[in-house]
Amino acid sequence: MRATIQLLAVLAVPMTLTAQLPSSHTLMPVPASVVLSPAELRIDSGFTVAIVRHRDPRLERAATRAIVRLEGRIGIPLARTIGRERSAALVLDVAGAGFPVPDEAEDESYQLHVSASQAVLTAPTVVGAIRGLETFLQLQDTDGRGWYIQGADIRDTPRFRWRGLLLDVSRHFEPVDVIKRTLDGMAVVKLNVFHWHLSDDQGFRVESRIYPRLQQLGSDSLFYTQEQIRDIVAYAADRGIRVMPEFDVPGHSSSWFVGYPDLASGSGPFEIARTWGTFAPTMDPTRESTYKFLDAFIGEMASLFPDHYWHVGGDEVEPKQWKENPAIQSWMKAHGIANEVALHTAFNKRLFAIVQKHGKIPVGWDEIFQPDLPTAAVIQSWRSSDALAASAKAGFRGILSAPYYIDHQKPTSDFYLADPIPATTDLTAAQQALVLGGEACMWSEYVTPETIDSRIWPRLAAIAERFWSPGSVNDVADMYRRLDVTSRRLGEVGLRHEDHVRRSVRRIAGDSAPLFEALLDYVRPRDFGGSGANQLVPHTRLIDAAVADPRDSWNLTGLARQAGAGNAAAVATLRTAFERMTGFHARLLAVQAGIPAANDGLQVAAALADLGRLGLDALGFLGSRMVPDGRWQANADSALAAIAPNRIRQWQLRPVPADAVRLLVEAAKGLPPPHGSP
Amino acid sequence: MRATIQLLAVLAVPMTLTAQLPSSHTLMPVPASVVLSPAELRIDSGFTVAIVRHRDPRLERAATRAIVRLEGRIGIPLARTIGRERSAALVLDVAGAGFPVPDEAEDESYQLHVSASQAVLTAPTVVGAIRGLETFLQLQDTDGRGWYIQGADIRDTPRFRWRGLLLDVSRHFEPVDVIKRTLDGMAVVKLNVFHWHLSDDQGFRVESRIYPRLQQLGSDSLFYTQEQIRDIVAYAADRGIRVMPEFDVPGHSSSWFVGYPDLASGSGPFEIARTWGTFAPTMDPTRESTYKFLDAFIGEMASLFPDHYWHVGGDEVEPKQWKENPAIQSWMKAHGIANEVALHTAFNKRLFAIVQKHGKIPVGWDEIFQPDLPTAAVIQSWRSSDALAASAKAGFRGILSAPYYIDHQKPTSDFYLADPIPATTDLTAAQQALVLGGEACMWSEYVTPETIDSRIWPRLAAIAERFWSPGSVNDVADMYRRLDVTSRRLGEVGLRHEDHVRRSVRRIAGDSAPLFEALLDYVRPRDFGGSGANQLVPHTRLIDAAVADPRDSWNLTGLARQAGAGNAAAVATLRTAFERMTGFHARLLAVQAGIPAANDGLQVAAALADLGRLGLDALGFLGSRMVPDGRWQANADSALAAIAPNRIRQWQLRPVPADAVRLLVEAAKGLPPPHGSP
Repeated sequence: MRATIQLLAVLAVPMTLTAQLPSSHTLMPVPASVVLSPAELRIDSGFTVAIVRHRDPRLERAATRAIVRLEGRIGIPLARTIGRERSAALVLDVAGAGFPVPDEAEDESYQLHVSASQAVLTAPTVVGAIRGLETFLQLQDTDGRGWYIQGADIRDTPRFRWRGLLLDVSRHFEPVDVIKRTLDGMAVVKLNVFHWHLSDDQGFRVESRIYPRLQQLGSDSLFYTQEQIRDIVAYAADRGIRVMPEFDVPGHSSSWFVGYPDLASGSGPFEIARTWGTFAPTMDPTRESTYKFLDAFIGEMASLFPDHYWHVGGDEVEPKQWKENPAIQSWMKAHGIANEVALHTAFNKRLFAIVQKHGKIPVGWDEIFQPDLPTAAVIQSWRSSDALAASAKAGFRGILSAPYYIDHQKPTSDFYLADPIPATTDLTAAQQALVLGGEACMWSEYVTPETIDSRIWPRLAAIAERFWSPGSVNDVADMYRRLDVTSRRLGEVGLRHEDHVRRSVRRIAGDSAPLFEALLDYVRPRDFGGSGANQLVPHTRLIDAAVADPRDSWNLTGLARQAGAGNAAAVATLRTAFERMTGFHARLLAVQAGIPAANDGLQVAAALADLGRLGLDALGFLGSRMVPDGRWQANADSALAAIAPNRIRQWQLRPVPADAVRLLVEAAKGLPPPHGSP
Repeated sequence: MRATIQLLAVLAVPMTLTAQLPSSHTLMPVPASVVLSPAELRIDSGFTVAIVRHRDPRLERAATRAIVRLEGRIGIPLARTIGRERSAALVLDVAGAGFPVPDEAEDESYQLHVSASQAVLTAPTVVGAIRGLETFLQLQDTDGRGWYIQGADIRDTPRFRWRGLLLDVSRHFEPVDVIKRTLDGMAVVKLNVFHWHLSDDQGFRVESRIYPRLQQLGSDSLFYTQEQIRDIVAYAADRGIRVMPEFDVPGHSSSWFVGYPDLASGSGPFEIARTWGTFAPTMDPTRESTYKFLDAFIGEMASLFPDHYWHVGGDEVEPKQWKENPAIQSWMKAHGIANEVALHTAFNKRLFAIVQKHGKIPVGWDEIFQPDLPTAAVIQSWRSSDALAASAKAGFRGILSAPYYIDHQKPTSDFYLADPIPATTDLTAAQQALVLGGEACMWSEYVTPETIDSRIWPRLAAIAERFWSPGSVNDVADMYRRLDVTSRRLGEVGLRHEDHVRRSVRRIAGDSAPLFEALLDYVRPRDFGGSGANQLVPHTRLIDAAVADPRDSWNLTGLARQAGAGNAAAVATLRTAFERMTGFHARLLAVQAGIPAANDGLQVAAALADLGRLGLDALGFLGSRMVPDGRWQANADSALAAIAPNRIRQWQLRPVPADAVRLLVEAAKGLPPPHGSP
């Protein structure tokens, strides 16, 4: 399935120009430098792999996984034995093991040369080779004769050293198999930090043997055993992924207090939180017993998580209990602490000392960045890019998350275009070097093990490209072209996002599932996409079936621009889409008598019908170059105003094609006046 | 989604006739007695469940699972607290716990009465209540107002006490999550025996601590730990499912000998078998050390598997090593054992004594049924229904598997119509009582964790009905009507069969996946459906994507009969199908240049094009009542002969609509001669 022939405007290095110029590649993330060649390395049952220099079990396992994925594609078994001959079809030439556990300072670079006779992957470390193997697999294509690897010369290294995904398993727990396939997907797109948000008000998710009431009373029996943690950390390490745990303190910690109420600043008993937001229960920073507990606990956990970083949380500290507790207030007075923000910093200083004693570097959310904070800490900015810049200017290392909240059901392009260091930055080179990278955040208020893949993927792949590829790689249309292929390939490692809509609507709508599936081609959920007002909601409604960026709508705005410029193919494609959109409302009404979920779709279907009709009208005006009359224009304006973003904020489901139709309506309104008019 | 209004001809008890006769039910298996009523028990957020008599944690967990499934359907949380009030919406009135672990003698009966105000489920045991809860969930339907449980009076008890699924995890290993969702699906359709085929030539799949080289050298590291076994046994028990282990001896045991070559009758070293069939390595029945080993091993395993039955295998014992080993031959002479069959029986006697010493009843395949076998043994007939009858006549209890090999890619109806005790049986009532039931067998030469759901489901649901429902429930069209709904519902417990085709062809064919998906609506794999000639084949070809009984083809033959009788709707449906069928070949040729897998579909697509054209012709003749001329008839006959079953035995993919077209061609040929002819 050769990709559409299309030149890439975004390549850092121009492609070799020959008479047999190959089609553009579908690599994601785009390498730092890639030169395609017309050569094709054919893959058949004789395919062999060799390791010729440094060799270790992790590299062997990575090579075996690549072989297994390749044989899954071609449908026939390949030799699993990994030889030592320089004549093998794929030669891994690796200088050394790199760090024994994945490390922030790891050299992840690699070079890949694919000719018609051989692919040679050269890397300074095993992790570099692991990254290069993914590129190798992404170069695989097919033609009538079979399978091949596209010829190429690639020199690649990441732009940022810290490229992460935060996964919140507190608000909703995710079982081990979900974690593993998420790690597999991360490896496909070269992400390297799994930030595991393991505790929050809604659940404490790790087995502690020292303080077993943490999981016994704080988790609804949904937690990871220490054996499972070790297994997952090893699984991640095998893929060159660091695992950074987060135990959020002193706020967001209700679940700790169910088993250990003495840690809290107020009096118990405490309960696991079931709803969302910030909660009053907060750790008591004025008692020595708190630090004794944290010391023992962090000591226990430090041996489970070999990563050098330890995330302390520190966000949204609710001062209510501190203010209302006379003992805390008098302690503050006695210690000259002016307010609750200063009390948080005092807590952090003690906490950081404990974290550092156990060999870890503390990381915390924006709010820890206060006067007097030791600069050893790393600041993760969740509130804004400006906050990141401010902490960099103050000499702190930072990670950007603010624009990458993928629990928000925004289109991929919104995330893709946000840059940790935008071209317009006023940071000095030294300050820029303090920006370690970014992390996408998957908060889990509105996701379950059934829906999570569809909430993370495929959008995370585009964010991974933002973190890895040169900043100049920012063509949205080309990103979507490659994302389409990448999304499908992610299914290969077990991710289920591409089945999500159909599987969900089948359950909701039975025999009428195709109607609902078609509707969701043009619909996205509201920003916090999910039906859940609390932890017990099943998340099996139409909003949970919908996805943020339905594939059939990726290109509507681009098509509208082309149609406005007279492109006939774009007009035809849009016409088909608009005709489909106009029909959903009547079809939902027709099945409403048997399917309660039809009600959930009526509002957005009515909006789609309006948009479809407007779009068809506008295409008609543009085609005939007839200026629409004032009445039509007024009608169009009021119809579009009715679905303006601020008007539909409360809608569960939102029409995606609004921007495209708005463009066409404006184009129709702007037609030159008819001949003969003044 | 109310089911089509259609009366059931197969109900054991006539439905109440009223002006508001409810639509037919979609229960599978059909209960022994069901009377539907027009009442509807509405399900909303106020739904409550109570347990009013015997109460235990297993029953509570079952009730909670039912609540969770119900809330998944309606999309809003329900109360999870299970009360004790007789006024609850669903009242569980259970007499006692039943057996502490699932037992062959368990009383699985229940009664379920659903009125507009309440559902009352009465059962003598917790397992009976578990069966009734599935019926309760199957009575759930929807209308424009929301969700409800159909009013009904049901008295139900199984026809056979032994209703099983054999799963072979030796030829291909299946991970714990696959086992668990398989058990969940079994519970949905009221199966009660999980026959776990844990060892064979291709792999030994259980951790032994006494003989660790069994799994260390015999499993490629793919085995269940003892902790996982205990977890799965408990998971099954929670669903009223027995777990019967099978360790196949003395044949089919190559994998044992890799670690323990002294057990074999020939000399080593031995290897795990990678291909299929029977292999020479066979346990040595003449050495005391063999029995000492088996005694210790079975003793260890007996504590892991609480079931009263122990399957010894005993099939396909290859006598080669016995014949070629002089020590064995002289031992036979010394002990007056005439031949290798008698040697197998001598082995079985010793083995059975060990099995019984550890508190278990031996079960074995057909071949153990030989003169001199103790009648305590249960015979599982895999070779024929006649073999089952023969052993029953000899006083042995038996289980029928011969007609239920679901690794064979035959349509559901073939399995459905096979009866463990057919109406034509010549067994006496006492002999019939020796037929405990049946087991579907899922041998795993051609399945992987990715494909297994599609190989088991939905066909197993129909077999489950055969084992549970009265023998008079045998209307194939009605079975398919209910299977369609049941198949969808099975997705609710995590089974992935309904996503299989699309997921597989997406990987094979990328953007052209819809073409391949449409093709597979009319195609089934060859009998042993799968691409694998050995254990290392990836099973990702088009044959692995195809399913045995594609939903769009279930009814083609029935439609052909109706069309032959002049039914216009059937003619229109068939015409659409035939037109689609004629197009696949040209469309595959069009994409062949980019998709190697297109080649795998060309042969069957050409056959479908022929069948489609023939079908359209025949419909034309039937519609116009024109007799086809002799040349057309001869062409039709030769085209149909070319795809006769014996002619296409080697084809990877086979056209499903052949029977339907054959019927129409015969109908066209049989038209009365034109007016005026002699």
